[in-house]
Amino acid sequence: MGKLRSNISISLDGFVAGPNQSAENPLGEGGERLHDWVVPLGAWRRAHGMEGGEVNASARIVEEALENIGAGVMGRNMFGPVGGGGWGDEHWTGWWGDDPPFRYPVFIVTHHPRDPVQMQGGTTFHFVTDGIEVALDRARKAAGDKDVMLGGGAQVIQQYLAAGLLDELELHVVPVLLGDGARLFDNLGDGHVRLEQLRAVEAPGVAHLTYRVLR
Amino acid sequence: MGKLRSNISISLDGFVAGPNQSAENPLGEGGERLHDWVVPLGAWRRAHGMEGGEVNASARIVEEALENIGAGVMGRNMFGPVGGGGWGDEHWTGWWGDDPPFRYPVFIVTHHPRDPVQMQGGTTFHFVTDGIEVALDRARKAAGDKDVMLGGGAQVIQQYLAAGLLDELELHVVPVLLGDGARLFDNLGDGHVRLEQLRAVEAPGVAHLTYRVLR
Repeated sequence: MGKLRSNISISLDGFVAGPNQSAENPLGEGGERLHDWVVPLGAWRRAHGMEGGEVNASARIVEEALENIGAGVMGRNMFGPVGGGGWGDEHWTGWWGDDPPFRYPVFIVTHHPRDPVQMQGGTTFHFVTDGIEVALDRARKAAGDKDVMLGGGAQVIQQYLAAGLLDELELHVVPVLLGDGARLFDNLGDGHVRLEQLRAVEAPGVAHLTYRVLR
Repeated sequence: MGKLRSNISISLDGFVAGPNQSAENPLGEGGERLHDWVVPLGAWRRAHGMEGGEVNASARIVEEALENIGAGVMGRNMFGPVGGGGWGDEHWTGWWGDDPPFRYPVFIVTHHPRDPVQMQGGTTFHFVTDGIEVALDRARKAAGDKDVMLGGGAQVIQQYLAAGLLDELELHVVPVLLGDGARLFDNLGDGHVRLEQLRAVEAPGVAHLTYRVLR
């Protein structure tokens, strides 16, 4: 069985999105700065169907995050706009256009049932209303021996962490202070979540810190 | 003129001390885990008058943090117990014994006036009641061309950061989740504090992240 992995950009003060997230501003105020390190990279551009771009120490990190993934899980807030708008619209198919960069089945944890949506390029969005464990079971089956990639947002990562279901967490620590927004390490209860540092990689404008979640 | 530098151990969820700090437990509940990476090091043991100890990638970091320092500034909470006890006692001379590891003048930001206390080995504690800028001015004069090291706690680092007086901040990021306690990046206002990543160093059980504070 593969691992459940997650990786997310985080401000130095612990936020994975700024305040006042909305359909127009899904990463919240200032949140787009969390991705300043990744957008110029060739590795990221290729995954999103573009050419060119930079190569630096982050390239390997981005490539590894895309390797050996057989399925994905994400929270409802990552798939659709917060506070209505797109999500209520049955035509909403995510932020990523007709050919999303996943190219594997993605299981979305939500309270709103909906038929699966098959996109171009190998991505199918499945909507799971039976909770995080069922979403993970279905993703594991779809992934076979490969890993499952857990997307955001903060809330769904917290839920998998608190439930002891996450195996590996990679943080892209960005030298930005957002001051407010969606805090990644929150609602984790009494401190039973224990981590072991696997590596720390320096790259321009970002530090990549990888942790194993201990049982 | 030298720089104002600070370095502090911080949990992955952003705390530099656990909850319920007290005279008996100055780092709060679970807070002693923040120092698990440094206490076994030979570099740390030598600074505290002990022999032996380990050498790993953190040794250089600890040695650098001790180099070229001509004076120190610290907050009242780092010098004395929180909530009475030792501080009210005129005989209280800090947590560090008769021969503190600083070996330079240390200026303590406090509301309580007190005569300077000269310790063994070159450390003198000065108590400054005129605010953080005066404390820094006095430390700079004492340091000459050398740097000034800003100690904790969280509150005094926040004050210097918010005032635009800190030049360099090194975080020793420990794979621990404290859940509650003294949060380092708090009370910083409207996001005017801007940082540039200088380096990230991997070491056993800790990642050392260094930032320049931009004006």
